[in-house]
Amino acid sequence: MEHLTDIEIAQKTTLIHIKDIASKLKIDEDDLELYGKFKAKLPLDLIDEKKVSLNNLVLVTAITPTPAGEGKTTVSIGLTEGLNKIGEQATVVLREPSLGPVFGIKGGAAGGGYSQVVPMEDINLHFTGDFNAIEKANNLLSALVDNNLQASDNLNIDPRSIFWKRVIDMNDRSLRNITIGLGGTANGVPREDGFNITPASEVMAILCMTSGFEDLKKRLGDIFIGFTFDKKPVFARDLKAENAMTILLKDAIKPNLVQTLEKNPAIIHGGPFANIAQGTNTILATKMGLSLSKYVVTEAGFGADLGAEKFLNIICAASGLSPKAVVLVATIRALRHHGGAATDALNKPDVGLVAKGFANLEKHIENIRKFNIQPVVAINSFINDSIEEVKLVIEGCEKLGVKAVVSNGWTNGGEGCKDLAFAVKKVVEEDRSQFKPLYDWKSPVKEKIEKIAREIYGASGVNYDKKAELNLRRIDRLGFNNFAICMAKTQKSFSDDEALRGRPENFVVTVREIEIAAGAGFIIPILGKMMRMPGLPAHPASENMSIDENGVISGLS
Amino acid sequence: MEHLTDIEIAQKTTLIHIKDIASKLKIDEDDLELYGKFKAKLPLDLIDEKKVSLNNLVLVTAITPTPAGEGKTTVSIGLTEGLNKIGEQATVVLREPSLGPVFGIKGGAAGGGYSQVVPMEDINLHFTGDFNAIEKANNLLSALVDNNLQASDNLNIDPRSIFWKRVIDMNDRSLRNITIGLGGTANGVPREDGFNITPASEVMAILCMTSGFEDLKKRLGDIFIGFTFDKKPVFARDLKAENAMTILLKDAIKPNLVQTLEKNPAIIHGGPFANIAQGTNTILATKMGLSLSKYVVTEAGFGADLGAEKFLNIICAASGLSPKAVVLVATIRALRHHGGAATDALNKPDVGLVAKGFANLEKHIENIRKFNIQPVVAINSFINDSIEEVKLVIEGCEKLGVKAVVSNGWTNGGEGCKDLAFAVKKVVEEDRSQFKPLYDWKSPVKEKIEKIAREIYGASGVNYDKKAELNLRRIDRLGFNNFAICMAKTQKSFSDDEALRGRPENFVVTVREIEIAAGAGFIIPILGKMMRMPGLPAHPASENMSIDENGVISGLS
Repeated sequence: MEHLTDIEIAQKTTLIHIKDIASKLKIDEDDLELYGKFKAKLPLDLIDEKKVSLNNLVLVTAITPTPAGEGKTTVSIGLTEGLNKIGEQATVVLREPSLGPVFGIKGGAAGGGYSQVVPMEDINLHFTGDFNAIEKANNLLSALVDNNLQASDNLNIDPRSIFWKRVIDMNDRSLRNITIGLGGTANGVPREDGFNITPASEVMAILCMTSGFEDLKKRLGDIFIGFTFDKKPVFARDLKAENAMTILLKDAIKPNLVQTLEKNPAIIHGGPFANIAQGTNTILATKMGLSLSKYVVTEAGFGADLGAEKFLNIICAASGLSPKAVVLVATIRALRHHGGAATDALNKPDVGLVAKGFANLEKHIENIRKFNIQPVVAINSFINDSIEEVKLVIEGCEKLGVKAVVSNGWTNGGEGCKDLAFAVKKVVEEDRSQFKPLYDWKSPVKEKIEKIAREIYGASGVNYDKKAELNLRRIDRLGFNNFAICMAKTQKSFSDDEALRGRPENFVVTVREIEIAAGAGFIIPILGKMMRMPGLPAHPASENMSIDENGVISGLS
Repeated sequence: MEHLTDIEIAQKTTLIHIKDIASKLKIDEDDLELYGKFKAKLPLDLIDEKKVSLNNLVLVTAITPTPAGEGKTTVSIGLTEGLNKIGEQATVVLREPSLGPVFGIKGGAAGGGYSQVVPMEDINLHFTGDFNAIEKANNLLSALVDNNLQASDNLNIDPRSIFWKRVIDMNDRSLRNITIGLGGTANGVPREDGFNITPASEVMAILCMTSGFEDLKKRLGDIFIGFTFDKKPVFARDLKAENAMTILLKDAIKPNLVQTLEKNPAIIHGGPFANIAQGTNTILATKMGLSLSKYVVTEAGFGADLGAEKFLNIICAASGLSPKAVVLVATIRALRHHGGAATDALNKPDVGLVAKGFANLEKHIENIRKFNIQPVVAINSFINDSIEEVKLVIEGCEKLGVKAVVSNGWTNGGEGCKDLAFAVKKVVEEDRSQFKPLYDWKSPVKEKIEKIAREIYGASGVNYDKKAELNLRRIDRLGFNNFAICMAKTQKSFSDDEALRGRPENFVVTVREIEIAAGAGFIIPILGKMMRMPGLPAHPASENMSIDENGVISGLS
C-alpha cells in the first residue's frame, strides 16, 4: 500500500454533505446551523435526557502512555466505524484540537491514518470558532480586571493577588511570564501576568462542565480572580462580567457535527487540558451524542489514572452519565517501555519486556473495575508487534477475565476494528457495568485526594507541601471543600515521578499546591510542574506548510 | 413612534434565509458557504473583472466629523435600501466591526435605527471568524519571531529593533506596553513589546489590499519585522511564515454575505483602522459586490480628507476601482460645530453657525472634485435640524453645482433615502465622474506627502521631525519609495491640530515619523499621536449586557 500522510488520506476522501450525516441521526435539516457544507452546530434542544440514559456510552482511555501517545483518538474513531460496520448505530464524540500545537511539533489531532474525522484542515484550524470565543471570554475578564484596577471607584483588588491569566491559542513561550500595564498612568497598573494556551483556560473547563446558558452564566460569575487589599475574595460576578462572557460563548456552547472518513457522525466540542483540567469534551456534546445515537464512543486525555479517573469522578458524577464499557488502549511498544526497554529499542519485539510491562495494564484494569465497569483492552496495532507479544497480552487479559482484541483502525478503518466493536457490544449487552464513583464529593478534601492516590495510583500515602497546606486552609475559608478533585500529575507514571514505569509500588506522592477552579467546580492538586504554555521547536511545523492558489493545503499533519 | 434600541429593531425584523439574498444576486446556492441561516461566505471565483468595470461604485464619505460621527454607515445602508426601492439593484459593501469596542463605549457598528445590517449580534460579535483568523496569523508571526530569538541557529535579529507587535481584538490598555520573555532561559528572550487592537494589524491591511491567495502569500512574506544586529532588514519570509499565515486566512479571505433590514444584500469584509491604515473594506469584497450588482455602495473611515483620500489614492489606484459618484455625508450638528458652536450647544439650531461651518463642507466638495468625481451631499437628518439650516446647506451646495438632499435612513430606512438614491443615480447616469488619482505612486515620497497636505488639507507646507527624516532615509535604503502614502492624522480637523475646526488656512503640518507597511504596500506618515489600543471606560458596556436561557441578547447596542 502506498504510504499517504494523514492530510493526503483526508483530502482523497469524498465527504458527504453534513445534512446527510445529520439525517442518519434523524436531525431535521432546519435544526442544523451549517458552517459550510461539512460542519454544523447542533441546537441544545436536541438533547433528550431520557435517551441519554437509555443509550450506551463507551469511554476510551489508555494505559500509561509513552510520549508518542497510545492512539486513543484513532481507536475511538476506528471503534465507531467498526460499530457501524457491525450494524450498531454509533457516534464518536471528541475534543476539539488546539491550534497552537498545529504549528509546533505535534501537528493536528483529528485521528490518524484511516481513522480520522474530516474536514481535518478545518478541525485543526479555526473550526467553528469555539476556541476563539473561549479565548475572547477569558481575555474580556482579564481586561475588566485590569480596567478595574485603573478605575477610580474600583473594587480595591490587590494586583499581586490576581490568579486569572490571559490566554492565546498559540505555542508562545515568550508570553509565559510578562509584565503589563507599563508606560505611565494612562496605560494601566503595572503587574506581573502571563498567557496560558487557550485549552488551559478555566472558561474552557467551564464550557465542558456546563448544562446550559443559565448554568454557564452562574459558573462564569463564580470564577475566582484574587483578593482585595483587605483579603476579601473577588469573583467575576463582582465585575459584572458573566453576561458579556456568556454572550461571547452563545455559539460556542453548541456542539459541532462533522463526519468520519467512513461517513459516520462525529461530534467534536470543547478541548480542555488533560493535565490541569478534566481533559475531555463537553458534557453537552456527550449528551447530544447519546440523544441521537445508540452508541457514543468518547475519549479522555492521558492514561486511565488521569483521564478516566477524572471522567468518572468529575464528569459522570456531575452529569449523571454512566459508561457501559471502558476501552483501555494499549500498544505493545508502550508495554515494552513499561517492561524497561531503552528508548531506542521501543520498536524491537521482546516478549520478556512485554510480560514485565503487562503489570501496568493490569493495574489500569483493576482501577477501571473499582468503578464497577467492565473494561475491554484494545491493542492498537503497530507494524513491529510480534505475534508472541500480542498473544501474551491477550492471554494475560483473559486470565483477568478481560477481553483483549487487536485494533487496526489506523491501517484499515472500521474493517480493522470489527473485533473490537463486537467485544464492546458484548460487554454492553451483557450489562456488566454499573458505574459508581470512587469518592463522594462531600468527603473532606484530603480524604478525596488520598482515595485517588492510594486506590488509583497505588501510592502508600500523600505528602503536602507547606504551600498546599496553606491552599487547603484557603479552600476551607472560601467554602470550596465540596468541590470535585481534578488531579494534576505527570501522565508518564502512576506516581508523580515520571521515571517510575510499569506498576510502581511503595511510593508517596506530594501535593505541592492546590489551585481553585470555582466556576468549573473543582480544585486542582498540583503534583508536579504543569505546562500551561508550550513553546515552538527550533524549526516549527509552520515552516513546511504550504497553500496553493486555490487554497489547497499541504504539510499539515 | 415607540423608541426602540438598535438591537430591538434588529431583533423585531424577520430575516430571510441567506440563500434567498444570494438568489437576488444570481448566486447558485451550491456556491454559498453557509454560516448558519443568515450568513454566508462567497467564493472568490464569483469575482468577474468585466462586471467590476461595468457596474457602478458609489463611495460614501463625510465632512470633518464630530466625536459622535456623521452616520456614514447608516447613510450607506439607507442609500442601498433607497436605490433598491427606486428599482436599481444595489449592494452595500462595508467593513466588519471590531469586537473590542462592543464592550467599551462605542457599542456595535452595523448601522443604526432603520438602516442596519443583520444579524447585528453576530456581525458585532465573532461574525464568521475573520478577525480571529487575522489575529492568529499576526500572532503566529510574533511567536515565530520570538521563537527565532530563542533558537540556536537564529537569524541574529536584534530584539530592540522589532517593529512587529502582537494584536488582540479587545479594548485593553494594560497590554499597550509590556515586557515579555521573562522567567529565565527556558522562557524566551526578554524584550519590550505591546499589543495593538486587531484592526490595527498589518495583516488586516494586507487582507484588505489583496487580490487573491498568491498575492496574499507574497504580501505576508513582505512584512517588515526589524533588523539583525548587523543592520540587515528581516522580513516574514525569512521566518518562512507566509504559508502558515495564509493557511490561517484561507476562509477569512472570502467576503461575507448578510442582509439589510429591508432584505437587500450586504457584503461585510475586513475592517482596518482608519487612522494608521486604509480604513475601508477589502478590495475583494468591493469587486465581489460589483460582480453581482449594478450598484455598490461602500464607505471609507473618518472624514473625506482621510477616508476618501486613501480610498481613492491607495485602493482605487491599486485595484483599478473607479467610483462613479461620491456621497459626502454632513450633519447640521457638525456644521454648527465647525461654525464654532460650544460642545453643549451642538443640538441648538443656529443658522449663522451653520453658514460659517459650511466652509468645511465646501472644502471637502472641492477635494472630491480634484479626483474628477462628482459629489452628492447627504444631509443625515437629526430631530433638531431646523428648516432654515437645511435650506442654507442645500442652497449653498446648489451654488457649487452640487446636489444636496436630506437623508432619513435612521428613522425611515430606504423610504427615507429615495431622494438621495435618485440624486446618486442621476450623477452616475450623467457619467460626470472620470476618476484620476491625485498623485503618482512613483513620485518622490516627500512630493506625494506634500501633494496630499497642500491639496487636500489646505496646508501651506509640511515640516519633518528629525525622526521622520531618518525614517525617510531608511525607506529609501530599503527601496520602498514607490509605496502609496497612508496618512495618519487626526480626523477632527483638516490640519494636524484637532482644535482647528471649519476650513483652517495658513497652517503647516508636521510629520513626526514614518512607518512602513511593506506587505500592505504603503508607508504611514504619522502626524500626531495615533491610538492603536483603546481602553475601557470605568463602567464598560459589558456591565449592562444580558443573555437569557434561550441565548437571546439584550444591551448590545
